[in-house]
Amino acid sequence: MTVHQMKKISENTNYTAVNIGSLDSLTTNYSFIHAKTKQEVKGKVFVKEATKATGTEISFTALPPKSELPYFHFHNKDEETYLILKGTGYYQVDDDCFPISEGSVIRVAPQGKRGLCNTSDVEMVYICIQSKANSLQEHTADDGGRVEFNPKWQI
Amino acid sequence: MTVHQMKKISENTNYTAVNIGSLDSLTTNYSFIHAKTKQEVKGKVFVKEATKATGTEISFTALPPKSELPYFHFHNKDEETYLILKGTGYYQVDDDCFPISEGSVIRVAPQGKRGLCNTSDVEMVYICIQSKANSLQEHTADDGGRVEFNPKWQI
Repeated sequence: MTVHQMKKISENTNYTAVNIGSLDSLTTNYSFIHAKTKQEVKGKVFVKEATKATGTEISFTALPPKSELPYFHFHNKDEETYLILKGTGYYQVDDDCFPISEGSVIRVAPQGKRGLCNTSDVEMVYICIQSKANSLQEHTADDGGRVEFNPKWQI
Repeated sequence: MTVHQMKKISENTNYTAVNIGSLDSLTTNYSFIHAKTKQEVKGKVFVKEATKATGTEISFTALPPKSELPYFHFHNKDEETYLILKGTGYYQVDDDCFPISEGSVIRVAPQGKRGLCNTSDVEMVYICIQSKANSLQEHTADDGGRVEFNPKWQI
């Protein structure tokens, strides 16, 4: 995988922070060679390895104007959720095709055959989050606790 | 939880798709009553329930200019990853405080005590993804397969 513009911000025992740069520059800044097809994929960056994530594989993608992903795919164990940040187009799962735009959030079960396209004149920018289906046990307030703390920042 | 502006786009056996609206209108469109504090929290929306997600709890948040989250928190089982889309400020984990801006990706282990602030003059918009730590077994090409398909869309 070729990573051009990812910078580590800070890291310690309990976290890793990186910056991938402007979300309008994904196509300029990132490409990688697909593990199976050996083809170069531009405008896509995965952050699991860089952030040392253990529960998700998150990627950022820029899809050029008037273009589509070149294939549909499914998963074995992993659920995916797509978050559309910019651009308009269509998403298809199995035989259902529906419009997507800024703010669209699409959760797809592992076996769903999925693909998407950008019909607009601007880049479509989206985030894809892979996680193991049925893995989340607790969430939001049930899993968390508040602590007293003095922030080091000055607003 | 009060949800003002979330629309279901489409749903079937293998997926649920919703649209939360413009990411610049989160403060206008969303608020909820916190389960523990009973206080109203504006500009934040969770999508696990609406999308029927089983591996993640994803939320979108707008933090007003020159403001901070009113507390630090930790988790028991869940890893969190924060994706900063807009605004600049600082993120703190335990005793480490570091700058964040568009494109910052911060992965925090459950036990990390975390908080953030927006020092800029614009809203900070960020996405937070909760997943169970150490739950992801396979990811990217290892878990997926390509399929032949005829898209129903017309670009």
